[in-house]
Amino acid sequence: MKAIYPGSFDPITFGHLDIIERASKIFSEVYVVVMENKRKNYTFSLDERIKMIEECTEHIKNIKIDFFKGLLIDYVKENKIDVVIRGLRAVTDFEYELQMAMANKEMCPDADTIFLMTDKRFSFISSSLVKEVAYFGGDISRWVPKNVERKLIEKIKITNI
Amino acid sequence: MKAIYPGSFDPITFGHLDIIERASKIFSEVYVVVMENKRKNYTFSLDERIKMIEECTEHIKNIKIDFFKGLLIDYVKENKIDVVIRGLRAVTDFEYELQMAMANKEMCPDADTIFLMTDKRFSFISSSLVKEVAYFGGDISRWVPKNVERKLIEKIKITNI
Amino acid sequence: MKAIYPGSFDPITFGHLDIIERASKIFSEVYVVVMENKRKNYTFSLDERIKMIEECTEHIKNIKIDFFKGLLIDYVKENKIDVVIRGLRAVTDFEYELQMAMANKEMCPDADTIFLMTDKRFSFISSSLVKEVAYFGGDISRWVPKNVERKLIEKIKITNI
Amino acid sequence: MKAIYPGSFDPITFGHLDIIERASKIFSEVYVVVMENKRKNYTFSLDERIKMIEECTEHIKNIKIDFFKGLLIDYVKENKIDVVIRGLRAVTDFEYELQMAMANKEMCPDADTIFLMTDKRFSFISSSLVKEVAYFGGDISRWVPKNVERKLIEKIKITNI
Amino acid sequence: MKAIYPGSFDPITFGHLDIIERASKIFSEVYVVVMENKRKNYTFSLDERIKMIEECTEHIKNIKIDFFKGLLIDYVKENKIDVVIRGLRAVTDFEYELQMAMANKEMCPDADTIFLMTDKRFSFISSSLVKEVAYFGGDISRWVPKNVERKLIEKIKITNI
Amino acid sequence: MKAIYPGSFDPITFGHLDIIERASKIFSEVYVVVMENKRKNYTFSLDERIKMIEECTEHIKNIKIDFFKGLLIDYVKENKIDVVIRGLRAVTDFEYELQMAMANKEMCPDADTIFLMTDKRFSFISSSLVKEVAYFGGDISRWVPKNVERKLIEKIKITNI
Repeated sequence: MKAIYPGSFDPITFGHLDIIERASKIFSEVYVVVMENKRKNYTFSLDERIKMIEECTEHIKNIKIDFFKGLLIDYVKENKIDVVIRGLRAVTDFEYELQMAMANKEMCPDADTIFLMTDKRFSFISSSLVKEVAYFGGDISRWVPKNVERKLIEKIKITNI
Repeated sequence: MKAIYPGSFDPITFGHLDIIERASKIFSEVYVVVMENKRKNYTFSLDERIKMIEECTEHIKNIKIDFFKGLLIDYVKENKIDVVIRGLRAVTDFEYELQMAMANKEMCPDADTIFLMTDKRFSFISSSLVKEVAYFGGDISRWVPKNVERKLIEKIKITNI
Repeated sequence: MKAIYPGSFDPITFGHLDIIERASKIFSEVYVVVMENKRKNYTFSLDERIKMIEECTEHIKNIKIDFFKGLLIDYVKENKIDVVIRGLRAVTDFEYELQMAMANKEMCPDADTIFLMTDKRFSFISSSLVKEVAYFGGDISRWVPKNVERKLIEKIKITNI
Repeated sequence: MKAIYPGSFDPITFGHLDIIERASKIFSEVYVVVMENKRKNYTFSLDERIKMIEECTEHIKNIKIDFFKGLLIDYVKENKIDVVIRGLRAVTDFEYELQMAMANKEMCPDADTIFLMTDKRFSFISSSLVKEVAYFGGDISRWVPKNVERKLIEKIKITNI
Repeated sequence: MKAIYPGSFDPITFGHLDIIERASKIFSEVYVVVMENKRKNYTFSLDERIKMIEECTEHIKNIKIDFFKGLLIDYVKENKIDVVIRGLRAVTDFEYELQMAMANKEMCPDADTIFLMTDKRFSFISSSLVKEVAYFGGDISRWVPKNVERKLIEKIKITNI
Repeated sequence: MKAIYPGSFDPITFGHLDIIERASKIFSEVYVVVMENKRKNYTFSLDERIKMIEECTEHIKNIKIDFFKGLLIDYVKENKIDVVIRGLRAVTDFEYELQMAMANKEMCPDADTIFLMTDKRFSFISSSLVKEVAYFGGDISRWVPKNVERKLIEKIKITNI
């Protein structure tokens, strides 16, 4: 079974990493795929986001890191993926994800979406919360891997000047 | 009874159309009214949005298509409308709509707000989802009328160049 | 347009009364219909519940008070009713009501369900809350009409002996 | 990967069947396991519930139908199951399921819980709704397989006499 | 400031204890008050529930353990309590608690209700979950104090014979 | 006990004022602290927002009005504040606030967050709703103090020219 875990990963957090690790135990191959939408603004470039994921997932053997710039379901069809994985943290996530899962199922009935609940240690973390706290000099080492922490602090220094 | 179904309709979807058709069976006259707020960005101009609604509601006799640029309740008072109609899809809709209904009731106690549940076939569709999928070349024919599909594809071509 | 407002009304509260009054302004005829399900336990008998509704809705001319012991949609079909009215107080209401509305629509596509938001003054009242407070001797005069208050206090005296 | 789909199945509906079919495409072996809790009342006996599942899942090869009378996680450990599958219909489901998934993970960290969204055609069906409608003579053929419909109507006749 | 933390405590869990400890740091005096409603069934007697609370709160100096059999607001008025404390775990809690807080405020405007979020370690625990797991021989030592664990296991042995 | 009620207050509404008044009865000292985040756009300047709060809270003796431009928890630590106060209106508020409370608790375990439910009269008001209505010339006198109403109308006149 080939699964995909798509996201912005701007940047990757321990919450994402937890989902990736658990998914890699359930499925024989997990695609971690960074979405790039030219109409959105990202803090990190596509290359930076991919690099950070690579650095902190070296211990996981059955994953493939990639990106896509179009519709998720097109990527899914091309790569013959069986399952889309999404993490759920809260009720508001749930509703949005339910709508996306339904839309994707109409467009691509062969792939199913499954949901993993985010571990309760990370249930309140999001990439934007991490960036907000880092921006004001707060400690983010509990929420992101070391390499991400370092890059985020650098990025903030550059942007602020 | 005169009812109003206000919205951005940017563009109209089968979800909106379903509400309009059902409302037109319940009320003797249904105003479908396009909101135009100069501080918001729309994909389609006011004229385009009105035109698309006209084209796909020709079969409904007791509706009147209009627009307004101010407060909904002012339009309601001027036109002696009895009932405001809103579609509900999900819990997040529900909370926002509840707040607006309460605010409108305080400002205009004579008009009541009623809610129709969006049909389950369309419960996950929104104008922005439709635009997102169309933007990446996905098939949107299940979600919007033919004329809207055509105009949206044109619009994307022009904007992208 | 004929509308139905079904419920247990065990007993009727100001929250129910508010919905009845608003519905009677929107629809030409409103059936207020007491459900009786022999597998449920009610505090008041069917007759008592009907009587209490009659007493406090005398000022509303276009309503008809009735009961049914079967499926709501059978009553709806027999009486050629166009619209089912339900009150919404909170998100948990919303989900249950959405499920019932969908089930009813599959069984009886001709009748539509509409929702009215309970007025914010009554958004936290339920028949069971009223009974709980009355049971312990609390003041319920803000939440139910005079005749209901009196009957409920009597009922509690009898039951307690 | 061995997965378990536990439930009361009192009786099995098309909603359950949809989850079983989808799960059987994702996992190599799916245990459909009927919970029997002596402190709960069921409409159908354990044997009847198992028999109904067997009859309507004959076309699915990689499932195993079983029952358990204790804690889910004990069954999971004994049978070396990797994944617990749960269906999600609505926000209220979501919260309860989230709590159970967290409790199970603390008791059995090796097994993970995944969630599948119930197909939108069945999102409002529950075993109790089906029984309620059948009890009053409504048509339930859209919601349960033929064999379940027949057994439920029989059961209601016997119980009512 | 005198605060009250009311509940069934059937039995007390680490979730309750966490709220009590945090409340005792915020308020000068915290009443932990066990509700006894003769129309409800409890697993433990009123005395047993009080005893278990006493045993595991010996380290907290500014609390007073008590019980009441009537309306919460009557207890609040008699004891001149300023603040009612409630724990929130999930959205469904939130809605019920919001309704109770509003009802209490109408009946007793002088006392306000405040909410503490249950710590994420205990966000999924409830007295009934703990009893369910204990009933089937599961390990509950992460969720309740030692004395409660012992008493619950005893209670289950007696009840089962 | 020192409490903090942080917010944008852009501008202060009767909903905020209600929370401030109730908090000032529970805690000996309440800091009302205006957040200023240079990456956000405010309708009113920091000085204007502080001035409006000062004008309408003159009757409350135990409050201190201040601002901060960094992380809330840094302000909390510097000023040795014990409790963070947040108002809850709806389920969507609840989820966001729960996440912030958890993040803050990880960063600053000594300060706890408590929640007050917004009074039902103001449960649907937000600063942005007030501005939206004022912008179109609607009556906002039920929702904000006189001084805020006056300043908001002025502000709109200037901005519109």
